[in-house]
Amino acid sequence: MYKYEDNNYDPSFQLKNESIFMVGNGYVGIRGAFEEGYPTGDSIRGSYINGLYDRVEMVHAESAVGFPEEYDKQPKIADTQTCMVFLDGEPAQLVNTKYENYKRYVDYSNGETVRSYEFITRSNKRAYLTFRRLASFVYYNVASYRIEITYDGEIELLSVLDGDVRTYANPNDPRTSNEQKQLLKVKDLGENLDTTFLLMETGRTNLSQATLVKHIIISENEYTLENSIKDTKIETKITSNLHLVLDKVCVFTDSLRYTEPLRSAYETLEHLAYENYETLLEIQKNYLNDFWTNSGIEIYGNDNDQKSIRFMQYQLLQNVGIDSYSNVSAKGLSGEGYEGHYFWDTEIYIFPVLVVNQPQRAKSLLEYRYNILDSARKRSLELGHTKGAAYPWRTISGIECSGYFPASTAQYHINADIAYAFYMYYQYTNDILFMVEKGLEVIFETARIWIQIGNFFNGEFHIHEVTGPDEYTAIVSDNYFTNMMAKFNLEIAYKLYNYFSKIEDEVILEKFRVLVDKINLSEEEIEIMKKASDNMLLLYDSNLDIYAQDSTFLSKPMWNLDFDKRPLLLYYHPLTIYRYQILKQADVVLAHLLLEEYADLKKMENSYNYYEEITTHDSSLSYCIYGIMACRYKFLDKAYYYFIQSISLDLHDTHQNTKDGLHLANIGGTVLSIIQGFAGLRLQNDKLIIRPSVPEQWEGYSFKINFRDCVLDVKVEEEIIIRLIVGDKMNLLVYDKEYKVVKDKELRIPLAEDF
Amino acid sequence: MYKYEDNNYDPSFQLKNESIFMVGNGYVGIRGAFEEGYPTGDSIRGSYINGLYDRVEMVHAESAVGFPEEYDKQPKIADTQTCMVFLDGEPAQLVNTKYENYKRYVDYSNGETVRSYEFITRSNKRAYLTFRRLASFVYYNVASYRIEITYDGEIELLSVLDGDVRTYANPNDPRTSNEQKQLLKVKDLGENLDTTFLLMETGRTNLSQATLVKHIIISENEYTLENSIKDTKIETKITSNLHLVLDKVCVFTDSLRYTEPLRSAYETLEHLAYENYETLLEIQKNYLNDFWTNSGIEIYGNDNDQKSIRFMQYQLLQNVGIDSYSNVSAKGLSGEGYEGHYFWDTEIYIFPVLVVNQPQRAKSLLEYRYNILDSARKRSLELGHTKGAAYPWRTISGIECSGYFPASTAQYHINADIAYAFYMYYQYTNDILFMVEKGLEVIFETARIWIQIGNFFNGEFHIHEVTGPDEYTAIVSDNYFTNMMAKFNLEIAYKLYNYFSKIEDEVILEKFRVLVDKINLSEEEIEIMKKASDNMLLLYDSNLDIYAQDSTFLSKPMWNLDFDKRPLLLYYHPLTIYRYQILKQADVVLAHLLLEEYADLKKMENSYNYYEEITTHDSSLSYCIYGIMACRYKFLDKAYYYFIQSISLDLHDTHQNTKDGLHLANIGGTVLSIIQGFAGLRLQNDKLIIRPSVPEQWEGYSFKINFRDCVLDVKVEEEIIIRLIVGDKMNLLVYDKEYKVVKDKELRIPLAEDF
Repeated sequence: MYKYEDNNYDPSFQLKNESIFMVGNGYVGIRGAFEEGYPTGDSIRGSYINGLYDRVEMVHAESAVGFPEEYDKQPKIADTQTCMVFLDGEPAQLVNTKYENYKRYVDYSNGETVRSYEFITRSNKRAYLTFRRLASFVYYNVASYRIEITYDGEIELLSVLDGDVRTYANPNDPRTSNEQKQLLKVKDLGENLDTTFLLMETGRTNLSQATLVKHIIISENEYTLENSIKDTKIETKITSNLHLVLDKVCVFTDSLRYTEPLRSAYETLEHLAYENYETLLEIQKNYLNDFWTNSGIEIYGNDNDQKSIRFMQYQLLQNVGIDSYSNVSAKGLSGEGYEGHYFWDTEIYIFPVLVVNQPQRAKSLLEYRYNILDSARKRSLELGHTKGAAYPWRTISGIECSGYFPASTAQYHINADIAYAFYMYYQYTNDILFMVEKGLEVIFETARIWIQIGNFFNGEFHIHEVTGPDEYTAIVSDNYFTNMMAKFNLEIAYKLYNYFSKIEDEVILEKFRVLVDKINLSEEEIEIMKKASDNMLLLYDSNLDIYAQDSTFLSKPMWNLDFDKRPLLLYYHPLTIYRYQILKQADVVLAHLLLEEYADLKKMENSYNYYEEITTHDSSLSYCIYGIMACRYKFLDKAYYYFIQSISLDLHDTHQNTKDGLHLANIGGTVLSIIQGFAGLRLQNDKLIIRPSVPEQWEGYSFKINFRDCVLDVKVEEEIIIRLIVGDKMNLLVYDKEYKVVKDKELRIPLAEDF
Repeated sequence: MYKYEDNNYDPSFQLKNESIFMVGNGYVGIRGAFEEGYPTGDSIRGSYINGLYDRVEMVHAESAVGFPEEYDKQPKIADTQTCMVFLDGEPAQLVNTKYENYKRYVDYSNGETVRSYEFITRSNKRAYLTFRRLASFVYYNVASYRIEITYDGEIELLSVLDGDVRTYANPNDPRTSNEQKQLLKVKDLGENLDTTFLLMETGRTNLSQATLVKHIIISENEYTLENSIKDTKIETKITSNLHLVLDKVCVFTDSLRYTEPLRSAYETLEHLAYENYETLLEIQKNYLNDFWTNSGIEIYGNDNDQKSIRFMQYQLLQNVGIDSYSNVSAKGLSGEGYEGHYFWDTEIYIFPVLVVNQPQRAKSLLEYRYNILDSARKRSLELGHTKGAAYPWRTISGIECSGYFPASTAQYHINADIAYAFYMYYQYTNDILFMVEKGLEVIFETARIWIQIGNFFNGEFHIHEVTGPDEYTAIVSDNYFTNMMAKFNLEIAYKLYNYFSKIEDEVILEKFRVLVDKINLSEEEIEIMKKASDNMLLLYDSNLDIYAQDSTFLSKPMWNLDFDKRPLLLYYHPLTIYRYQILKQADVVLAHLLLEEYADLKKMENSYNYYEEITTHDSSLSYCIYGIMACRYKFLDKAYYYFIQSISLDLHDTHQNTKDGLHLANIGGTVLSIIQGFAGLRLQNDKLIIRPSVPEQWEGYSFKINFRDCVLDVKVEEEIIIRLIVGDKMNLLVYDKEYKVVKDKELRIPLAEDF
């Protein structure tokens, strides 16, 4: 139940499994490459630190104003994974005929990955090898390996700390980089007894990063340890007999967070003086016990789905940034697809999970957005606006890192997506101080952009030349999703302005006044925002009785070209794709997940049916949204179908690029498929509402909701059983009827057939 | 009258004047750099051969299917211009205090440029220097220099043939290249007595190019001549006393046109054995005499305008390609802007001049398009179409060379523009054989694209995701210009199919059948073309009573940002520009010049008034169209204003980039300003019509019209006097009334006030 296993070593899944078996903790991520190396096959042998970046020149075939001249790129940090194993001098590696009993798993209950096998030497002797690793959820700077060998003969381990690391490249796929780069280079290195270190520095941004490795040897027998420095790598050779256990305790630091990374790394190591792999694992286990208790989702009556959803929650834990220097990249810390960039995925697919489960961690994602607000203001000016903030479509440090503006910079909706997350956080936590200090500034500055890129025409507010989430249509007028999100962004700017300008708390009011002064926000401006929001055009087609994706979309022809060439973007010129009614991912349908209060339920359902037919799901962000919204319209079979698509995406590598890293948005979306999908959780007029349903493939499920000072436990089976496990009382709508949940009293409501 | 003069040497105009004083003949072009070199200041010291190209890698920040991976680029050929002058060892160059009586001019009557001055040496001695040059209009491979020095002392000339040539680059301007390239490299070189040669080869395309220089010395005194090879250049040192005349007769060949370029160059030189500069000039003069007689436009009562229009006609003669290997690049052979690429400029701005003046030369431009038809077919497949031909937006060899598809590949209208020129040629010449052998194939294959990128919706034919001529709006639906041109392309495909399939001439009919078979064209397909043409949506806005540029254009806001930052594309992100009702150039207005039969005159005029207000004329293709169409609506003052803007563009460098070459489309457009503008020449239902008017700044003007087997001389003063100078009779409409013009009988019609 609490393990994901893969006991069949197949080199053709090597790269995929490096992603699946990554270990990470939101700060550091280490792909699951083999310690002892591979005899054959590719490896993307990478370790990464969240938020660390170098800059790379961006060359345009034909440049224009506001096209980025350089972009952020996540470097590989020093590799700590290698530990070659020699048995009487013979290298132990996985070659078909020479091993037995291969086992590999990740254990969600204690947070380690384990790999073991029996190796048979050329002289037919048997050795027992076990490789364990973890990235500590408690000590974010720490990851550790344990290598244990039992062999009747001489055992030699060659542990390597390698500074010659280059980013992965695949020139044939626009979704990965097209050139290998050595971004971090060794600046200093050294060794002393059991400890080795590398201090590295990026070439353009001059950020430094330290890696410290301590070797702890547990052996009943005599052993030797010897370090040698070879150019930019340090090898530690350990020899013993019969049985040898090596713990490599690794500490990672960087100069974004530490003034002197190397010193801080040594301090951490000192602090950990008595910790070896075993004790770190114990701490890890306690942490996870708490996590699963307070945030774990249970699925009853379907072990496979239970395991899969655990995988998803676990990967969020491993890959979501833990501080304001970082966020969640498209592939988390598990690979190099999209070069470590942060997208809107965070706010729309991942943040809504965290705000329900771990509100403090959700907050740190917002802190990051606040930290890059000045960059977004600068970008706004670059784009020709006179005020406000235009958040970059993809970035690490805050600068726009997109090379193709029709599917990036034109996606202005990211501004509203971010504002949406700030408002959602506010509703879930009522954290007024955070709002007045940071949230409002982001909401006002993002709202300002809509006034500048939109215009009133015949009484309606239009927004031209934008791209919605569906990237198979670009640079259109009045994209439904964009207009709806803009309407919301403008509305909450207006609402919050009025609320805070009349707030009673003097301290908050003063802070609010300082903010309004700082950003020079006038009531006239707020009134224009209100007017734009009220008159925002949300296109509706009366012939089809559906909402229209944009002003021309429904007059385009249906796709009549080869449908098997997928994803389409790898086979067709953008103009060809743009010319048809064909979707990469949910657009109108997603708008209805986020803001159904602006729409009519029947028209929403009609729209779902229409757009579903023409969606390719070429984006990994699509299945989960169609699944969640299928629940809204009571298409439970369909919802379950999409749920299976979502859980299969990485686990069965259905998009065939899990090698480049896990699809974090899909992972968040899979968790949302239960919380917002089957359970139907929404915020509706600032109130929580659920509309639970259970697919026939399950007996039921349970999950937790953090809301303001309360935590709810919601169990959905034949009955819905709601318990308040933290807090005294809270209100909740179930199927549109309001209930008060109070401490120590279970609320039981029958599961509705027709909800 | 027949000269353009600039007798004031100002180094700050050096680059501009290198373009203005270029010599060329459609095959070779040599910029007007100084033979003796410059003491200071920049020079773009270039010579070019029309149609010669190398390929350069095209790097995209984010690539996609169908983005070019390499592009054509015009190389610099070997430089023949340099001839240093030493007077008693002192270099003669233009330094402020040391020369007098500087004169420079181009003589349109004999086709040479002349530059002379008196140079005062440090020892205060006076030398007389004259530099002449021409590119022969008769021997296309030949250009020649004559350098004449009179000096009471030792005269040394150092004539150079230089193979170390690199293309010009300006990384700050997207309209020029951003990297210097040495595209042609020396493969062989040699010297023998008075002759030197360089054989060069391109790096990627392996095209070779030979330059042969013969030194002819005319001197009353003794002289010496000595060649020396220095790496990739050859220096020829000539010394004499008192008076020295050196003719450098240069022969250029290339492997596009000649199997053995060097041998062919020697053959040409042999053929010219008795020609020196003087005899070449005589031949040149005869040629020009014929040209001005048969094609020259005269303006009466305004010397300045007369001179300017002569400049324009002369530059067409110098820069328009003369064979099917070449065309007219955006800058002709006068500079390196747009890297030597051919655009739609040819068909819409230049071809209509030639078809009236020099139909054979017009035909060779079409031959070029036919030659690259296979490339266009290949491009069509790259773009995801299953048949037809998609002409590249910019090219030399036929491949798409654009780096930014929204303002290039999306300009599908080039397909119809090319078809339009073929049809226009057919109407002017009735060259049925050419049509059945080449023209029809182009017209059918281009028409096929519209069926594939357009679709019927509610009974109307729509075309989505295209960009019209106005590049300040991109990727729109139902662009007015595009739809109108597509309508025409489809209509003539239908008409010509029906005409030729029933033609009586058996030979033509058989050729037609072979064609239809070859391209697999069915009657069903032709019927669909007819239906699409008949139902083509030409957007009209009833509120404004104007034609709408595209489906969303008129709902966008008016430009409210800084208007002085021009051209806008150098100051604003494309999305910002796209978001407003702001035009780079004529779009709807141009459509009405080409196809007024599809529109209503009053609505056309309203449209003109509307769009004129919001046009920046940031494109050099704009003034002339607004000028021509101003005549159509009887706004003669306005027409004259635009005429002045057009003639000033290069002559007064109003766009500040004449240094990169002459604006050939504007030059063609300026000539059209008289023929199609003031004279109002059109083809209307296959008949010629003129609607002459005379701006008050002139007393009148005259021009010639080649039409089928006739040549008309049209003189417009207080009366319109029409004479048939070749042919027996022809019909012509003047102000909508039909006249028959017959041999030896002047037709006199009063100039209308209200025409």
